[in-house]
Amino acid sequence: MTAAIGIDVGGTVIKGGVVSASGEVLAKATRPTNANAGPAQVVERIAALIATLQSESDGSFAPTSVGLGVPGNIDHGNGVVLASPNLNGWNGVPVARLVSEGVGLPVVLDNDANCAALGEALCGIGRGADSMVLLTLGTGVGSGMVLGGKVWRGTTGLAGELGHSIVHVGGRSCACGQSGCLEAYASASSTVRRALELIESGEASSLREVLDRGQAITAEMIVQAAEDGDRLAGRVWEETCRYLAAACINIQHLVEPQYIVLAGGMSAAGERLRRPVQGAIDAMVSRRFGQPPRVRLSLLGNDAGFIGAAMNALQVDR
Amino acid sequence: MTAAIGIDVGGTVIKGGVVSASGEVLAKATRPTNANAGPAQVVERIAALIATLQSESDGSFAPTSVGLGVPGNIDHGNGVVLASPNLNGWNGVPVARLVSEGVGLPVVLDNDANCAALGEALCGIGRGADSMVLLTLGTGVGSGMVLGGKVWRGTTGLAGELGHSIVHVGGRSCACGQSGCLEAYASASSTVRRALELIESGEASSLREVLDRGQAITAEMIVQAAEDGDRLAGRVWEETCRYLAAACINIQHLVEPQYIVLAGGMSAAGERLRRPVQGAIDAMVSRRFGQPPRVRLSLLGNDAGFIGAAMNALQVDR
Repeated sequence: MTAAIGIDVGGTVIKGGVVSASGEVLAKATRPTNANAGPAQVVERIAALIATLQSESDGSFAPTSVGLGVPGNIDHGNGVVLASPNLNGWNGVPVARLVSEGVGLPVVLDNDANCAALGEALCGIGRGADSMVLLTLGTGVGSGMVLGGKVWRGTTGLAGELGHSIVHVGGRSCACGQSGCLEAYASASSTVRRALELIESGEASSLREVLDRGQAITAEMIVQAAEDGDRLAGRVWEETCRYLAAACINIQHLVEPQYIVLAGGMSAAGERLRRPVQGAIDAMVSRRFGQPPRVRLSLLGNDAGFIGAAMNALQVDR
Repeated sequence: MTAAIGIDVGGTVIKGGVVSASGEVLAKATRPTNANAGPAQVVERIAALIATLQSESDGSFAPTSVGLGVPGNIDHGNGVVLASPNLNGWNGVPVARLVSEGVGLPVVLDNDANCAALGEALCGIGRGADSMVLLTLGTGVGSGMVLGGKVWRGTTGLAGELGHSIVHVGGRSCACGQSGCLEAYASASSTVRRALELIESGEASSLREVLDRGQAITAEMIVQAAEDGDRLAGRVWEETCRYLAAACINIQHLVEPQYIVLAGGMSAAGERLRRPVQGAIDAMVSRRFGQPPRVRLSLLGNDAGFIGAAMNALQVDR
C-alpha cells in the first residue's frame, strides 16, 4: 500500500502520522516542539518522530516519502524555511534536506496552512472538491488555497496571506505594519484586544471579573460570555464574525472555490463561529452573483496539517 | 498556420481579429454593437464580422475556431450568457451555439475580462507569465485571473469579481447591494460621484465651471484637474488610487501572481494612474512579505479582449 509520513510542525507541538494514498491515517504520534532550543534540535525531534512512525509501520504500508508542514514563509521548491513568526531562529533553514539526511526518505516541505487546506480538500470536509480555500483562525489569520486539486502557492510561495488582505482601508493597525488587515479584526488576539479596549474605556462586562482575578481574557471566554448574554462580548464577537464574513465574500468574488472552510484554534467554537459568520455573509453579500457562499467547519481539526503534508508528498511521489 | 478568430462584444462596439497561435494579429475589424436591437441582431452582427475576417484570411491562415468574449455572467462550458449588465435582454442566450450555426466553426465563449487577462498574459505585458491578475477599470471594476497559463473561472464562472470585494467593511454603498466594495471607491463612475459630492458640499474646485456650463464631469477631467493642481480633484484621484492599491495588495497576499495589470478605459490615464497606485502600494504594504508588488499598464489596450478570446479558442482547439 502506498503511504507517506506527514509532519505538522507547530509552535508548541509536532504532530505526525502515516497516511495512505487514499487518505487513511494508519498511525499517528506527537512530540513537544521545544522551539526555543533552535532549528537543529527541532530537526532531531522531527527525525525521531518519523523513526517512531516508521517502526509502527509493518510491511503492509512502508512509507516511501515524508511531507513536512511548517508555519511561515516557505521556499517549497528548495525545501527551505525562509522565515517563521512562530519558530525562533528559523531563517533560511534547509529543513527538507536536513530531515531527509536524517531519515533516508525524500522530504517535501510546504507552509502549514497549505498542508491543512490540501488535507481538508482531499480527505476532509472538501473531499472530492476541485477548489477550496481554508482559513486558519488562531493567534493570527492564515489561509491555504487548493485549485484544480493542488495547492496554489503563488510565484514565490507567498500566496495565502489572507490575514493581511485589507478589509478596511485606513482601519486598525496590524502587527505586520499595514492598516485595516483582516487579522487586525478577526484573529483571536485582536478579538481579545478589541474587548480589552472597550473594558478599559469603562464599558460594563462580565469579563471585567476575569481581569480583576488577575487572569488574561481569551477568545474562548469572549465567545462564552457572548453566548451568556454579555453585551460587550456579543458586540466584539459579532464584529469578528462580520470581518470574517467580508473575507469569505472576497474569496467568493475573487476565486469562487467550491468550499470555504474555517479551521485553526478559533474554529473550536464550532457552530458559535460558523453560524454568525454565515449569517453575516447572508446579510452582506449581493445576490447579483448567485447564491451566497456557504462556509463549513474543518472536519479533520488538528490532524489536517499532517494529513495534508503526507498527501503533498504523495502528489510529488506520483 | 494555426489561427483563430477572436471577438470582443462590448456595449457599444464589437471588435474582432484573426490571431495566430503565436499571438500575431493577422487582421482586425470592428462593428457597432447596436445592443438595443437585442441578442438576435447582435448575433447576426457578430456573424457578419466573422465573415468579413474570414474573407480577409487567405489560405495561409484559415481560422479553425472562434473565441467570443462577452461582459457578464457566463456559462463557459455550455457557451451561454446568463446575464449581462451591459447587454440588454441577454439572459440565458446560447450565443456560442447561435454563432457557431451561423459561421460553421466551433465557438468558445468566455467573460470579456477573462479574455483580456488571457490576451495580456499570453501576448501582452505578461508575455510568458504563468500567473497574472488583470483589473478592468471603467464604469465598473472587473478582473480576470490567469493561473498556470489558463483562465481561472471559479466553480460556476463567477470568479474575478474583484470590483465587489469588500475593502471597507461598513463603507460606501455599491450598486450591487453590498457596502464597501472596491467598485464603490475606485471605478470611473464612483470617482466622479465622490467629486460631485465634495463640490455639492461647497468645496472649491475648477471642476465647478464644467457643471456651470451644463456639462457632465468625467474621470478624465478629474485626472486632468488633479494634474493641473486642483486640490479637490487631487484628493479624489488620490483616494481612487489608494483603494486600487489596497486591491492590488490583496491580490498579492491571496494569489501572488507574477503580474498585476491595470486595464480598461481608466487605464488610458497611463502613468497618471500607474504611478500613484504604485506609490500607494509602496506606502501601504508590509515588507514582511518581500518586495511590494509592481503594477503594470495593459500593453494591448482595446485589442486585449479579442486577442485573448482567440487564444482561448486555440487553447481548447489543442
